[in-house]
Amino acid sequence: MEFQSRLLDLEAGGNFIVVMGADDAKRLGVISNDRLKLSSSGSEVMAILNTAEEFPRGILGVYKEISSKLELQEGETLDVMPAERPESLRFIRGKIMGEKLMPKQIDMIVADVVERHLSNLEIAAFVTSLQIHGTSMEEVEALANAMIKRGKTITFEKTPILDKHSIGGVPGDKTTLLVVPIIAAAGYTIPKSSSRAITSPAGTADRMEVLCPVDLRMGEIVKVVEEVNACIVWGGALDLAPADDLFIQVEYPLSIDPLLLPSIMSKKKAMGSTHVVIDIPTGRNAKITTIDEAQQLAFNFIELGNRLDMKIRCAVTEGEQPIGHAVGPSLEAREALEALMGNGPPDLMDKATSLAGILLDMMGEEDGKQKAAELLRSGKAEEQMRRIIEAQGGDPKVQPEDLPIGEKRLDIEAERSGRVLSINTRSIAQIARAAGAPSVKSAGLVLRAKLGDEVEEGQPLFSIYTDNGRRLDQARALTEELEPLWVGSRIGEKMVVMKISEAAAPGAERYILDR
Amino acid sequence: MEFQSRLLDLEAGGNFIVVMGADDAKRLGVISNDRLKLSSSGSEVMAILNTAEEFPRGILGVYKEISSKLELQEGETLDVMPAERPESLRFIRGKIMGEKLMPKQIDMIVADVVERHLSNLEIAAFVTSLQIHGTSMEEVEALANAMIKRGKTITFEKTPILDKHSIGGVPGDKTTLLVVPIIAAAGYTIPKSSSRAITSPAGTADRMEVLCPVDLRMGEIVKVVEEVNACIVWGGALDLAPADDLFIQVEYPLSIDPLLLPSIMSKKKAMGSTHVVIDIPTGRNAKITTIDEAQQLAFNFIELGNRLDMKIRCAVTEGEQPIGHAVGPSLEAREALEALMGNGPPDLMDKATSLAGILLDMMGEEDGKQKAAELLRSGKAEEQMRRIIEAQGGDPKVQPEDLPIGEKRLDIEAERSGRVLSINTRSIAQIARAAGAPSVKSAGLVLRAKLGDEVEEGQPLFSIYTDNGRRLDQARALTEELEPLWVGSRIGEKMVVMKISEAAAPGAERYILDR
Repeated sequence: MEFQSRLLDLEAGGNFIVVMGADDAKRLGVISNDRLKLSSSGSEVMAILNTAEEFPRGILGVYKEISSKLELQEGETLDVMPAERPESLRFIRGKIMGEKLMPKQIDMIVADVVERHLSNLEIAAFVTSLQIHGTSMEEVEALANAMIKRGKTITFEKTPILDKHSIGGVPGDKTTLLVVPIIAAAGYTIPKSSSRAITSPAGTADRMEVLCPVDLRMGEIVKVVEEVNACIVWGGALDLAPADDLFIQVEYPLSIDPLLLPSIMSKKKAMGSTHVVIDIPTGRNAKITTIDEAQQLAFNFIELGNRLDMKIRCAVTEGEQPIGHAVGPSLEAREALEALMGNGPPDLMDKATSLAGILLDMMGEEDGKQKAAELLRSGKAEEQMRRIIEAQGGDPKVQPEDLPIGEKRLDIEAERSGRVLSINTRSIAQIARAAGAPSVKSAGLVLRAKLGDEVEEGQPLFSIYTDNGRRLDQARALTEELEPLWVGSRIGEKMVVMKISEAAAPGAERYILDR
Repeated sequence: MEFQSRLLDLEAGGNFIVVMGADDAKRLGVISNDRLKLSSSGSEVMAILNTAEEFPRGILGVYKEISSKLELQEGETLDVMPAERPESLRFIRGKIMGEKLMPKQIDMIVADVVERHLSNLEIAAFVTSLQIHGTSMEEVEALANAMIKRGKTITFEKTPILDKHSIGGVPGDKTTLLVVPIIAAAGYTIPKSSSRAITSPAGTADRMEVLCPVDLRMGEIVKVVEEVNACIVWGGALDLAPADDLFIQVEYPLSIDPLLLPSIMSKKKAMGSTHVVIDIPTGRNAKITTIDEAQQLAFNFIELGNRLDMKIRCAVTEGEQPIGHAVGPSLEAREALEALMGNGPPDLMDKATSLAGILLDMMGEEDGKQKAAELLRSGKAEEQMRRIIEAQGGDPKVQPEDLPIGEKRLDIEAERSGRVLSINTRSIAQIARAAGAPSVKSAGLVLRAKLGDEVEEGQPLFSIYTDNGRRLDQARALTEELEPLWVGSRIGEKMVVMKISEAAAPGAERYILDR
């Protein structure tokens, strides 16, 4: 059937969507969400149909993605035919029905995700079924391989290529900003691609961006790494895993994360990594809540590494409270810089040297952790960090106090004397986000006391920083609601963790997709 | 944050969607699929965000659904704030994680579906999790009640209200066109709301529409039923189950049907039904494939009926081959009319009188099936059908030969002599659809032989009817590919049902959503 194209001056979020009136659709024998094959002067594309109750007859509304692909002119004639559903949709249905998918089937699903032959609702059904039925190691391997195949890869003229990754879930974790310069200072190559926060108060890319540009192109990254053995860049624009970006779009509203393993490992492989240490923070409000669960995940990382020809070691780490004191991009960058300059909080220093130590052990060094601590203590890691900052286009002389901190500040005071007996990391993250992090770089909070610390009544527990009064009010209101820190005189005096009086009570959101 | 509205002259399929540039979204601290609260001169609405790479700064693109709800003018200022995710999204996540949902939680999910607070991908995750984890009877009851609550209901001044429903899945099933007039001729009230085909070659509404209008409004239906004790109308525009219409939109591309029970029963309840017979066709290519499965479904219908205060009886029926000979709206209407006039195929006559008989038994009649057969034989059912046709605005004198049949005809001949040993109902449906059914009313096919019938080589097995040569070619090609009928000299001579040589071989689509 022939249609006149009407170019909609609008994107469809990357999807290949066309619009026609319900009557036209009926004549063509199709309904909403059916596939159409569009042809115009030799070019062909598959699109997903949206029907509209009111839409002129004989006209096909075409979103930008398709008009640019077909190089369409306004009013140009299009031949429109019903198209078969992609075969991958049957495999998705198979997974829903509990089948184990074969590598070839997974490859076709991932291909159709990247080529926009599957709609978001179909991808949502796929990730939901992965979440519920779980994935076998064969499926995980196939997912990782399919993601790698559809993305760009980067090749460095060096080997080995080291890397460090945290699965996330604990606020204030600026460890990468220490590990990377330590490893590079030891003479190894560590090109770190990192993510921006989606639902957390800061991602590694957000933190590093306070110090220097992070959105480097492939060629620039290769140059930086040649020069200084390392980089800390944003991986989002490198197109390393276009499939994963699309999966995350649908996982995000559902707060599920069944693709954690293949997502992380495909990006490591795309960066050419040969030796990787994976950090698995474990705590009641972290992504991983028990040591058993953490251990199982670690085994899976190591096994997947074997299959993808990467050496993996994992560290299960403390995730019961924020790392260091600062939460929020600029505050964290400041804390990391201070730590590199010899003045860091003990938990951050220990975590960074331990993880760097594991990588150095993998390289055959005598006592990796000892060596990492020495590189940090001696200022060599700081020196190296300044070289990285300079190579990426930042100011190598930057000082902690140069980094902007929100001008509005509110100190939250202890209402009684005692010890800090619990910190809810999820509440801490929510308050930092209410203050504006990560989009407001200078916003966030700084803990003035951590687990076990003694405080006097009226002494500040933490300080909230932000750029305007409205956000400060929101963060204050949330603090009153959430009670993120609990001060008591001894453990056990507050045995009720949560009171519940309604079946459908509201709960806190989880931030799990920052991987 | 304030935005100028830009009215998009476009619907978003009923969804509440707004568009802003990625930079604006970043400043607001939100990403695609997040919720926004829009306010304009006192009115407020929740919308789901789509971000666009290219979109003018400070402008919010507003689809028709929202601009008409807020009565927006082009360029009007809108206050835009990030909004919390609806609580129902947490319950959906709970179901994904395997929780049993409580009635109140289900009610909130259904409410948010109807109020467009949930996006299609979120609804897809919900129906996928229902499909995988299954639904308890408590959940099914809650779903039915929530659907009824959100839809319109119709009240007739009579009682009891009888009804008949088939879960579908077998082509050529025009039984309703006989059962309804039989029951009405017996003096009982049977207001039948029916559906159009989504993926099958004909729905009851498509068949009836060949004889008279079916898209009656509520008031007209009440009048028709008062006059002639019965109607056969399209339920789709009555707004009986708006939630279900939205669920079907996402179930359709996934070919899953976890809401079969609450969907059917909520519509029966909305029509005021008190006594219902449910037909469960069972066959290798039907929706239900085994007698055990059919029996379990029947128990569930009866139990749900108890809970919703409706008397239900079920019939497990033969679904191994089409009912009667005709497949396609007009061909089926013709066959049904012939059957009412005393000249019907035996399987159709038996099925219709059996199902009508069950309803009459429920009314306390001595021998329901016998009475139904008598009403059919005597011509009283035909008379009644003509009254129904007239009341709905059709020609009561209509004759079978008045009903239009596709002018292009192709006879598919037996390639050998023998007996028809198997008929693939799914292939039959596909071929009828390739010929144009249901959107081309006069298209379809007529079986010239059924299971067990003897045929000579060269004798027609079935005839394809359609309106143009291209469709005829497509139906012919599909027939050659699918071999829908198998002729042999004795059972067992063709033991291989299907050959498979590739892991990811294409397969036929299932049509399961015509309920």
